[in-house]
Amino acid sequence: MLAEIKGLNEECGIFGIWGHDEAAKITYYGLHSLQHRGQEGAGIVVGGNGKLTFHKGLGLVTEVFSNGELQQLNGTAAIGHVRYATAGGGGYANVQPLLFRSQKGSLALAHNGNLVNAEKLKFRLEQQGSIFQTTSDTEVLAHLIKRSSEPILKERIKEALTYLEGAFAFLILTETEMYIALDPHGFRPLSLGRLGGAYVVASETCAFDVIGATYEREVEPGELIIINKQGIRSERFAPRSTRSICSMEYIYFARPDSNVDGINIHATRKNLGKRLALEAPVEADIVTGVPDSSISVAIGYAEATGIPYELGLIKNRYVGRTFIQPSQSLREQGVKMKLSPVRGVVAGKRVVMVDDSIVRGTTSKRIVRMLREAGATEVHVRISSPPITHPCFYGIDTSTKEELIAARHSVEEIRQLIEADSLAFLSQKGLLEAIGRLDDSAWRGQCLACFTGIYPTKIGGKEHGECIQTGGR
Amino acid sequence: MLAEIKGLNEECGIFGIWGHDEAAKITYYGLHSLQHRGQEGAGIVVGGNGKLTFHKGLGLVTEVFSNGELQQLNGTAAIGHVRYATAGGGGYANVQPLLFRSQKGSLALAHNGNLVNAEKLKFRLEQQGSIFQTTSDTEVLAHLIKRSSEPILKERIKEALTYLEGAFAFLILTETEMYIALDPHGFRPLSLGRLGGAYVVASETCAFDVIGATYEREVEPGELIIINKQGIRSERFAPRSTRSICSMEYIYFARPDSNVDGINIHATRKNLGKRLALEAPVEADIVTGVPDSSISVAIGYAEATGIPYELGLIKNRYVGRTFIQPSQSLREQGVKMKLSPVRGVVAGKRVVMVDDSIVRGTTSKRIVRMLREAGATEVHVRISSPPITHPCFYGIDTSTKEELIAARHSVEEIRQLIEADSLAFLSQKGLLEAIGRLDDSAWRGQCLACFTGIYPTKIGGKEHGECIQTGGR
Amino acid sequence: MLAEIKGLNEECGIFGIWGHDEAAKITYYGLHSLQHRGQEGAGIVVGGNGKLTFHKGLGLVTEVFSNGELQQLNGTAAIGHVRYATAGGGGYANVQPLLFRSQKGSLALAHNGNLVNAEKLKFRLEQQGSIFQTTSDTEVLAHLIKRSSEPILKERIKEALTYLEGAFAFLILTETEMYIALDPHGFRPLSLGRLGGAYVVASETCAFDVIGATYEREVEPGELIIINKQGIRSERFAPRSTRSICSMEYIYFARPDSNVDGINIHATRKNLGKRLALEAPVEADIVTGVPDSSISVAIGYAEATGIPYELGLIKNRYVGRTFIQPSQSLREQGVKMKLSPVRGVVAGKRVVMVDDSIVRGTTSKRIVRMLREAGATEVHVRISSPPITHPCFYGIDTSTKEELIAARHSVEEIRQLIEADSLAFLSQKGLLEAIGRLDDSAWRGQCLACFTGIYPTKIGGKEHGECIQTGGR
Amino acid sequence: MLAEIKGLNEECGIFGIWGHDEAAKITYYGLHSLQHRGQEGAGIVVGGNGKLTFHKGLGLVTEVFSNGELQQLNGTAAIGHVRYATAGGGGYANVQPLLFRSQKGSLALAHNGNLVNAEKLKFRLEQQGSIFQTTSDTEVLAHLIKRSSEPILKERIKEALTYLEGAFAFLILTETEMYIALDPHGFRPLSLGRLGGAYVVASETCAFDVIGATYEREVEPGELIIINKQGIRSERFAPRSTRSICSMEYIYFARPDSNVDGINIHATRKNLGKRLALEAPVEADIVTGVPDSSISVAIGYAEATGIPYELGLIKNRYVGRTFIQPSQSLREQGVKMKLSPVRGVVAGKRVVMVDDSIVRGTTSKRIVRMLREAGATEVHVRISSPPITHPCFYGIDTSTKEELIAARHSVEEIRQLIEADSLAFLSQKGLLEAIGRLDDSAWRGQCLACFTGIYPTKIGGKEHGECIQTGGR
Repeated sequence: MLAEIKGLNEECGIFGIWGHDEAAKITYYGLHSLQHRGQEGAGIVVGGNGKLTFHKGLGLVTEVFSNGELQQLNGTAAIGHVRYATAGGGGYANVQPLLFRSQKGSLALAHNGNLVNAEKLKFRLEQQGSIFQTTSDTEVLAHLIKRSSEPILKERIKEALTYLEGAFAFLILTETEMYIALDPHGFRPLSLGRLGGAYVVASETCAFDVIGATYEREVEPGELIIINKQGIRSERFAPRSTRSICSMEYIYFARPDSNVDGINIHATRKNLGKRLALEAPVEADIVTGVPDSSISVAIGYAEATGIPYELGLIKNRYVGRTFIQPSQSLREQGVKMKLSPVRGVVAGKRVVMVDDSIVRGTTSKRIVRMLREAGATEVHVRISSPPITHPCFYGIDTSTKEELIAARHSVEEIRQLIEADSLAFLSQKGLLEAIGRLDDSAWRGQCLACFTGIYPTKIGGKEHGECIQTGGR
Repeated sequence: MLAEIKGLNEECGIFGIWGHDEAAKITYYGLHSLQHRGQEGAGIVVGGNGKLTFHKGLGLVTEVFSNGELQQLNGTAAIGHVRYATAGGGGYANVQPLLFRSQKGSLALAHNGNLVNAEKLKFRLEQQGSIFQTTSDTEVLAHLIKRSSEPILKERIKEALTYLEGAFAFLILTETEMYIALDPHGFRPLSLGRLGGAYVVASETCAFDVIGATYEREVEPGELIIINKQGIRSERFAPRSTRSICSMEYIYFARPDSNVDGINIHATRKNLGKRLALEAPVEADIVTGVPDSSISVAIGYAEATGIPYELGLIKNRYVGRTFIQPSQSLREQGVKMKLSPVRGVVAGKRVVMVDDSIVRGTTSKRIVRMLREAGATEVHVRISSPPITHPCFYGIDTSTKEELIAARHSVEEIRQLIEADSLAFLSQKGLLEAIGRLDDSAWRGQCLACFTGIYPTKIGGKEHGECIQTGGR
Repeated sequence: MLAEIKGLNEECGIFGIWGHDEAAKITYYGLHSLQHRGQEGAGIVVGGNGKLTFHKGLGLVTEVFSNGELQQLNGTAAIGHVRYATAGGGGYANVQPLLFRSQKGSLALAHNGNLVNAEKLKFRLEQQGSIFQTTSDTEVLAHLIKRSSEPILKERIKEALTYLEGAFAFLILTETEMYIALDPHGFRPLSLGRLGGAYVVASETCAFDVIGATYEREVEPGELIIINKQGIRSERFAPRSTRSICSMEYIYFARPDSNVDGINIHATRKNLGKRLALEAPVEADIVTGVPDSSISVAIGYAEATGIPYELGLIKNRYVGRTFIQPSQSLREQGVKMKLSPVRGVVAGKRVVMVDDSIVRGTTSKRIVRMLREAGATEVHVRISSPPITHPCFYGIDTSTKEELIAARHSVEEIRQLIEADSLAFLSQKGLLEAIGRLDDSAWRGQCLACFTGIYPTKIGGKEHGECIQTGGR
Repeated sequence: MLAEIKGLNEECGIFGIWGHDEAAKITYYGLHSLQHRGQEGAGIVVGGNGKLTFHKGLGLVTEVFSNGELQQLNGTAAIGHVRYATAGGGGYANVQPLLFRSQKGSLALAHNGNLVNAEKLKFRLEQQGSIFQTTSDTEVLAHLIKRSSEPILKERIKEALTYLEGAFAFLILTETEMYIALDPHGFRPLSLGRLGGAYVVASETCAFDVIGATYEREVEPGELIIINKQGIRSERFAPRSTRSICSMEYIYFARPDSNVDGINIHATRKNLGKRLALEAPVEADIVTGVPDSSISVAIGYAEATGIPYELGLIKNRYVGRTFIQPSQSLREQGVKMKLSPVRGVVAGKRVVMVDDSIVRGTTSKRIVRMLREAGATEVHVRISSPPITHPCFYGIDTSTKEELIAARHSVEEIRQLIEADSLAFLSQKGLLEAIGRLDDSAWRGQCLACFTGIYPTKIGGKEHGECIQTGGR
């Protein structure tokens, strides 16, 4: 079951604006700052002037909009999307926003997250005669809205949202309105801001900094925000519940300059490093982090231990879509891909290598070997998250349980497998403390499912027969 | 005069290999690791099997070789080049290596550096009937070799090299041999290595790490290395002189994982930061560096002062050629381009902002303002180089004297102009000490012309009437 | 009403093959020979091996499949489509074949023709909750199939086809079968052939010649052909009726080397010319045809009159999508676009200019003027079709009634408007005789609606209130 | 020797204009009409306003100038070039016009023809120190001009032209002047015209028709025309000699609507057909021509014999650069490439197949077979030129003597080899008569070298040791 659901997993970034003369351009810069959340495709739908026009394509934001397409996107409202590169992920048709036109009007959808009951809903809708154009679970919402018997669009949307289970942050744009919705558990981040008289919404606050907008507040779990000419209005499609924001956003996904649910990522990562230093100190000559996500952690670890932080690993910045991967024979001769050890820094040194997580263990093993080949005398691995023992169903592509090394091996076994001199993971308590969620009884605010197997929602549903134990301790 | 010479300035990266079955592919990865030295164009000429074939183009290495061109480049020897984006720089024709075919055989040339007497030599050669195809000064060498009356190619090359003044690292490939030459002052870095049985040469050692090669030694100033089926041989085309390697390679140009003239760049930059902390301490809450070159410096400064290093500025990684710059009106509304302040980090803080240099001062001013708008209460600017008061004629594009803010203003005036609360530059002595050149009486080993105006070579020559004072104190 | 329907009009070409190891490649060559039927876009869906894969794009067949896409299209069955360039016609999404995936299986559709009740059907389907992805009327069939309550796909298709009114030739490919359907009036041509053991189907027989296939027979009006592993089977979804094949296929649309409904096009066009010579002879020095469609006609006219055929007008072969149209000012200075007069041929001559039809009259006027400016002393226009007085609703883009010059003007008025010395149209009887349909009482076999206003089907339907008189006298 | 010279052969088209505000655009349309003379590359250099700017590229004119490049080419004078696709022909660097910049000024060159002493001149120039950038013989002229000791450019050009032997039509553009030169034998066509106040020059007059220019006169063999602000002036760089214009221009190369040396091509080809009918009549059912060049001939043959002209062979119009050639296995299964037989026309018929020439015989054999497979009962081949028995050194790519079937076989042998029922070539006398050159004792006006082996110039020169007998009987 896991394998088939895995294909649907996707992390993404969304951005929206209402009430700005250059809505498409602002969205371009907003999406650009969210590029780390998805590099497979990008799209913008613009409206607010009575009709919706769009452009989308495969590739980076700058590539998709490289031929003057922004000039064609006139309007005062826009929503945009950057899509994560899932293997074999449907190509152009799945790039969002999805735009649905009908004789009654048009509706554009941008989605970040993953619905756990998408297949079940799709099955029912197809039985009723619906035709799906994409393999994305996002399209389910459009069909549910279309089939709702409510007379008013807002009510149709509300009704449709109640059918969905899982993680979702939705932006919806019509000829006359914008809707913003976050799932009742608030798995994914979604922030609201202002840019002069305009409203903006984004997956991460770094998008606000880049366009000069000011942060207002988080979109709340279960909230439906409606923006139109009459202004902004907040309603609910689901009762308020405790938040279950994804831990991985803090650990490796979000950009270090973003605040997620009000908490700065770089500062949090330094805290993770400091906490890790307390939990698992080691005698060594240098600390180095695996770029990019673990640099902040490594600096925190170095500050707390007094071991100097050095640049022991470097990432090549120019690896793009067209990069030609070295053949097996060249790799065996020593040709590196994205990551290189800095021989002059690590040779003859005892190295603390800080990374954010271990999934399959193959990457960690490769880096440890790389450091040893570059002359490191010892390699001590420190991981800024607890062991990942369970798959994620809410939009982070963490593989199936079978592939998760920590699901089948003890820490000591993993240490041997990755050939490290020592290995330590951050504790769950340490994680929550470093994020600052422990002391405000905020453990409920954080999704720890991939570390604990305790999922905040039903997974799959009884039709598929896999009612995994629900969260709430 | 400066302005016209300026047009010719260019920083670049070169790579060569002799004796490897996949010479072109190795060169691809080598150039890829040198991509930071030039993003305008790239090319590879391959030989060693009796004929030279090539491919070059505008764009990044991965873009130029994205359509299977490497498959066509068969041979056991190759030279490659990445070219710096100079404004209006001639386009495709100027992309190197340049390939010259004649009925006697072919010759390919890759050049890093800048000849100060190129115009003078070109003038004479044209008077004698030569036709130039490019606006690059590199082509001069080909014509000088062609016109030499020496019977043997090696001697023709030697004679031609003696006419050149300025900075040059040359790779030359013919059907049967590879030549490597470095100017008598050794302005630009050039290192020699081994990859199994093959010889490799590169502008920076990071290229060796990425392909798994081992470092052998530096190419010496005035040395001409010849590699052919008989093996490798070192000769001289100019007497040994003291080296004048470019300071800017250490300060901002080279990649942090490279060793330049045997000295690691990241370690050097941390030293620059520590030394700067000694020379110009300040009371503050956080230290932040301008990415990418000043991160290492800021970490060093933080280590030495105990002020925590934080991520106060972030660079967007996905700004490529096709990025659409924000219009003036959007910039005024606050849309950022490549660099954003991290509001959550700097708000309410006294910030030490570390940067590598100040050229015109406009960028520094912009960053200071950006930090203040993001809430910084004080901004203290620390620069890891002495004030740049003179233009460079050896390949670093530092603008004309008129544009250099430090050529016309005192440090206090600059502080006011960039609106900083305090400003300090690293001393010349501090620079040399941090690089490790002071104690081995190595001032002679370093070119400081842009800080001192003391140029190691003649500039221009009397035909142009601007015989600026020559170096050697 | 006409204007809104006009937007949907489209002429296209379709090709299918079942049972060949290189199905995609054969389809490529087949589509290539049908390129004259549509240059906006092209696509191929391949199957027969348990799953459907596809590639489609905007542009010519050779452009769409220029990057090795054919290599990815493995399978033993395929259908393909070339799409006509309608102004503002929906772009990529509308390029066919359309592929619909569902949990029960996939279905690909290629369509040539135009449904006259598409809007009405769409309206009803949307009311029932269907979401349309394209603006093409082709998608209606997919929704009708999906919503059919019949248990077997073949029966669902049959039921769906009975809802359709208008002109349609459909190819349908599923994981296990291919379906071929032609509307009950057989407006559009569709031929069946064999290539070794494989079955092939194409809009025109020129596709058979190019791939070396042999012609078998026409697909019959109202026929549904099913091909699968058990072989080929013919059924009917509608009773046999007299055919109404489009006259314009003979007059200008089909390729001269094709046989349409068994009749060779080039031979027919020569007959049109000979018949025109009988009906409207004239004393002149040369006969010339407007390329490409009227060359054969002009040769026939020349043969019958004894006036020599000459090349008085020439078409530039290299006018493609990227051709830059001359500005108004350049046109006024005499810069020609696609068609040029041959001064050396027409100067001082009395010219018979043969063309296939007059729609708005603007092109004819332009050519007459062009010939006179090149020195023709007289220009006699001969048209190989009757006056077009009514719009077409079956897939030929002939404009609205308001724009049709012959709907509002007599032949003499048209002659004056296009500034010809004389003008004659072929008679309806002459047309049928030349095609060879008169003597076999076959006038019923030909759609003459654009000349007569007698439409073989209802147009629009009563919901839209324009029940134009139905055909059959 | 022949093989090495062959590589240099090239047919091309040139166009120039002086004194028009939209010089680049007019040149674009002019080149466009000359596209049949070369499809590998195209370029335009524009001047007249004090500096030369250019754009060139590989591909068709419409492809090379598809991204707004024309907008950048401002100036009142321009020269342009379309280049023939020679196998392995040097790519971008060889695309013309070639532009040579020096400190004294710039010079652009466009060349149609082939120099027979290019290698010899290149050898000498290289010995004197010149470096060649292209493998094109055109560059020789630039070096000769550069090295001339004459003080004035016009005199330098004249001196340089006297060194050249072979076929050349040159356009030269500098910052202030345009030069037009035709070799002393006038092998290639070159016509002069007027467009309002502007002067135009083109390889064929069809370029004048398309831009609305009027024909003035032919450029004369040995003439050098200079156009500048003072107006137009004609001088000579070589004494007047009898013309030797290429027969192949009439037979297959020029566009049917052009006049070459004042003689219309379509009319000439019809004459060739009529003459061929007189010389070699045959009893048959239909006449068909191999498109495009032999259509006019076939019509002439049909007119003269009374056998009806039919469309027995058709060429696919959409075969472009990206067309995927069928694999050997598909070809064997009957997949056609560019040319298809029209089964409905030829089946059961005795066919006269008219073609322009036989070079290797392989194409003729293929077409004969194709016609038989399509059902032709007899195939009679009629060729509108005499047998080609000798290679061309003047710019037509006719292969080496070894490859010419008529150099080694009798007509009867060729008939058997191409599997025709009968075969006839036009006689030399018939050729000259049809062109209209016999009666005005104009045989001297026509180059017949490929039929006779009598070359109007020295070939190669004694350095290469192959002084083939010179022409003039």
